[in-house]
Amino acid sequence: MRQKVMIPKEVDNIIFRPIGIIHSPYKTKEETPCQGYRSHEEGEVEVFEEFEEGLADLDGFSHIILLYLFHKSDSYSLKVKPFLDDSLRGLFATRHPRRPNPIGLSVVKLLSRRKNILRIAETDILDGTPLLDIKPYIPQFDQREKVEVGWLEGKRINFPERSCRH
Amino acid sequence: MRQKVMIPKEVDNIIFRPIGIIHSPYKTKEETPCQGYRSHEEGEVEVFEEFEEGLADLDGFSHIILLYLFHKSDSYSLKVKPFLDDSLRGLFATRHPRRPNPIGLSVVKLLSRRKNILRIAETDILDGTPLLDIKPYIPQFDQREKVEVGWLEGKRINFPERSCRH
Repeated sequence: MRQKVMIPKEVDNIIFRPIGIIHSPYKTKEETPCQGYRSHEEGEVEVFEEFEEGLADLDGFSHIILLYLFHKSDSYSLKVKPFLDDSLRGLFATRHPRRPNPIGLSVVKLLSRRKNILRIAETDILDGTPLLDIKPYIPQFDQREKVEVGWLEGKRINFPERSCRH
Repeated sequence: MRQKVMIPKEVDNIIFRPIGIIHSPYKTKEETPCQGYRSHEEGEVEVFEEFEEGLADLDGFSHIILLYLFHKSDSYSLKVKPFLDDSLRGLFATRHPRRPNPIGLSVVKLLSRRKNILRIAETDILDGTPLLDIKPYIPQFDQREKVEVGWLEGKRINFPERSCRH
């Protein structure tokens, strides 16, 4: 069955609705790690039951991309001081959560699925985060070689496991 | 200066607004490639001038992640037949553009920036697509090893350069 989504013709306001909720051990911004790839904590993605059918075949993927709302970020600045730097940087050259459209993106490990519940690891997401989309992580699409990382070049990207949220 | 974003307290409807427009040689869905990593066409990201300041420091990154609206996708099904397969698959186990929240994600090559205009390559994005966010592509965050790709396993992911849109 085809279901409607809400995109106004003039594409001015775009209206999204959560398709689920992400549960994690991180109850506050302060205890949430910067990036999940060093985290050993597990979490759960609760996809609302009306979308469960869309999770078929996801089980075979070891990693998935979660797109979600940074729901605690209700404002933004175009220059920010990132965790790894003392200089002000352009917002779009950082992964700072306070953005004009506060969409978070995390690659997480998919441990298992039971009905509408996904068990995940390597998560850096705040408990109670509204889920917007799930995509399979596909190296051919999502990985690039010979990558340069601008102001991050030469910095040791070695986050503490906790507490570097803004 | 801090600017407000619109997240209603109850996080039911989420309202986003485009921060720019993506220009590409692909004028119709039919001529747009499935995935950009095999495309040699170039395109331009026009970020609206009010956000130009946020592009500072982006130049040093060789690759960026674009999040955008699949603005031609106004409905969805929870089971879809992906381009690479003859079976119906769960929507969230595919990169199909028709989704409950039709957010597109592409890793593209950043060639240059001039003021609010980014010149990009390896693009698979339809001309006129509304831009939602730009993030720097950072291998430590965005790449994973030992990846399994479920129903795609063993399939030769070898898209034609054009025409596999839905």
